[in-house]
Amino acid sequence: MKQYIVTALVANKSGVLTRVSGLFARRGYNINSLSVCATEDPCSSRMTIVAEADDATIKQITRQLDKLTDVKKVSLLQPDKAVCRELLIIKLSMPASARPEIESTCNIYKAKMIDLSPVSVIAELTGEPNKIDAFIKVVSHYGIIELVRTGLTALGRGEASINDLDDHNDML
Amino acid sequence: MKQYIVTALVANKSGVLTRVSGLFARRGYNINSLSVCATEDPCSSRMTIVAEADDATIKQITRQLDKLTDVKKVSLLQPDKAVCRELLIIKLSMPASARPEIESTCNIYKAKMIDLSPVSVIAELTGEPNKIDAFIKVVSHYGIIELVRTGLTALGRGEASINDLDDHNDML
Repeated sequence: MKQYIVTALVANKSGVLTRVSGLFARRGYNINSLSVCATEDPCSSRMTIVAEADDATIKQITRQLDKLTDVKKVSLLQPDKAVCRELLIIKLSMPASARPEIESTCNIYKAKMIDLSPVSVIAELTGEPNKIDAFIKVVSHYGIIELVRTGLTALGRGEASINDLDDHNDML
Repeated sequence: MKQYIVTALVANKSGVLTRVSGLFARRGYNINSLSVCATEDPCSSRMTIVAEADDATIKQITRQLDKLTDVKKVSLLQPDKAVCRELLIIKLSMPASARPEIESTCNIYKAKMIDLSPVSVIAELTGEPNKIDAFIKVVSHYGIIELVRTGLTALGRGEASINDLDDHNDML
């Protein structure tokens, strides 16, 4: 099973997310990550879904997504032809004695410390998912109190846009 | 109607997202943004939902979320007691003549240029949602080709964790 990135332009209205995620759930396929938010046009939201599936299944799911009324455009992004980023917010245990080391680790990864308590710190980091994974691994021995990741979000490289796709995408 | 931030720790398995988003959809409430991704524990995912509702409704929805089998913890985050961040990736038209100005605008907002074509640029920006909104407004006259936002993600300030909450959260 491979990891796929599905990007979709959908109507920004109630129920669309339930119908889209339901397409995956009905097949028993878990969504690894999903993010959705309005675009510059408040009538449209853009959704990025990362899911593991075999090639035939993901193509079938994306074709079915493309047929939903409230789904305007769908595309499968190739990781080598896209910029992929993720945002992490992580809260770590930080006794005073560990502060210089944690600060140095954050500097190396270009993570920003954004909140402090006498015993903890919150840091944010944006990057490709493998950089986020590596940072989490490195800081885990300080003690992770909690963390949240947005999941991967992505745009295709170059000047093309998802809006250039046909409403019924024959490439799927 | 006010904007609320719901954060939830859920089982990382098929169908959970459909059931959670269905709770909002059944009431006709649109989700402004949602992001979900696995945590440091691969059995758990953390979900951040931003939705507009009145106070009574959001409390009712979060109480019902808390009762779902696959939802482990739920909390309503107070924006003034949380660090809130969002990630934007935006593709702009950029003829050679506009390059110095766009580069300067990106520097002012600390946006990073991450892809170039002869006629376009992709930039990424992490920040609070109002900073992201302001950046989009400022660059919109260059011509937005496409953009994607993760939606807001957040952690409560201080050393407490969502894991400290009771499984049945009486605060809701």
